[in-house]
Amino acid sequence: MEKNIEVSLLFDFYGELLKPSGRQAVDLYYNEDLSLGEIADRVGITRQGVRDSIKRCEQLLFQFEEKLGLYKRFRELENGLDEISDTARRIIDSSQNEEVCKLALKIESAASDLKE
Amino acid sequence: MEKNIEVSLLFDFYGELLKPSGRQAVDLYYNEDLSLGEIADRVGITRQGVRDSIKRCEQLLFQFEEKLGLYKRFRELENGLDEISDTARRIIDSSQNEEVCKLALKIESAASDLKE
Repeated sequence: MEKNIEVSLLFDFYGELLKPSGRQAVDLYYNEDLSLGEIADRVGITRQGVRDSIKRCEQLLFQFEEKLGLYKRFRELENGLDEISDTARRIIDSSQNEEVCKLALKIESAASDLKE
Repeated sequence: MEKNIEVSLLFDFYGELLKPSGRQAVDLYYNEDLSLGEIADRVGITRQGVRDSIKRCEQLLFQFEEKLGLYKRFRELENGLDEISDTARRIIDSSQNEEVCKLALKIESAASDLKE
């Protein structure tokens, strides 16, 4: 079963909407990097059961994003904030005015805080 | 039944996760401003049925936000972008440097685009 990097990103976003058992399996597989067999031993179901549960959760995560699109929207916001930071940095580099530099630093730091 | 302004905001955010029938009832009640009786006539169930359905959906919307907190996070991002816009505007007002003003305008416009 191939791991899809997008699943871990969507899991961070929508994981709380999954049922606890599925959420645990996805977490162990994607974040703790356990094998299907190890997860099966840990939670006391078959390897195939774990696999099915993870597959179902993956589908749900993609469905949540298809319906809400909030992950995409956040990504766009983050990219926009990066651009704002870069532009603020260019102001700092090209201005001798102390007040202007202070304001540009304020923007740079606000943009970086918002990304967290 | 009192209308809660927060419900319409959460509905914009998470409405797609509701079942179609509940989503329709909430939409007609909160966005189209129909009465419970009018919705009952429109969808062919009892007034009490409409009321129950809306109540259930309201609870679900609050649960989604409790679990994911994405609406709160977006609000914070929007407030942060407003602050960035204001600060960029202060740079424009206090600098004579054409290049600096151009960069600050770029920030102001990026922050406003990102809010949409």
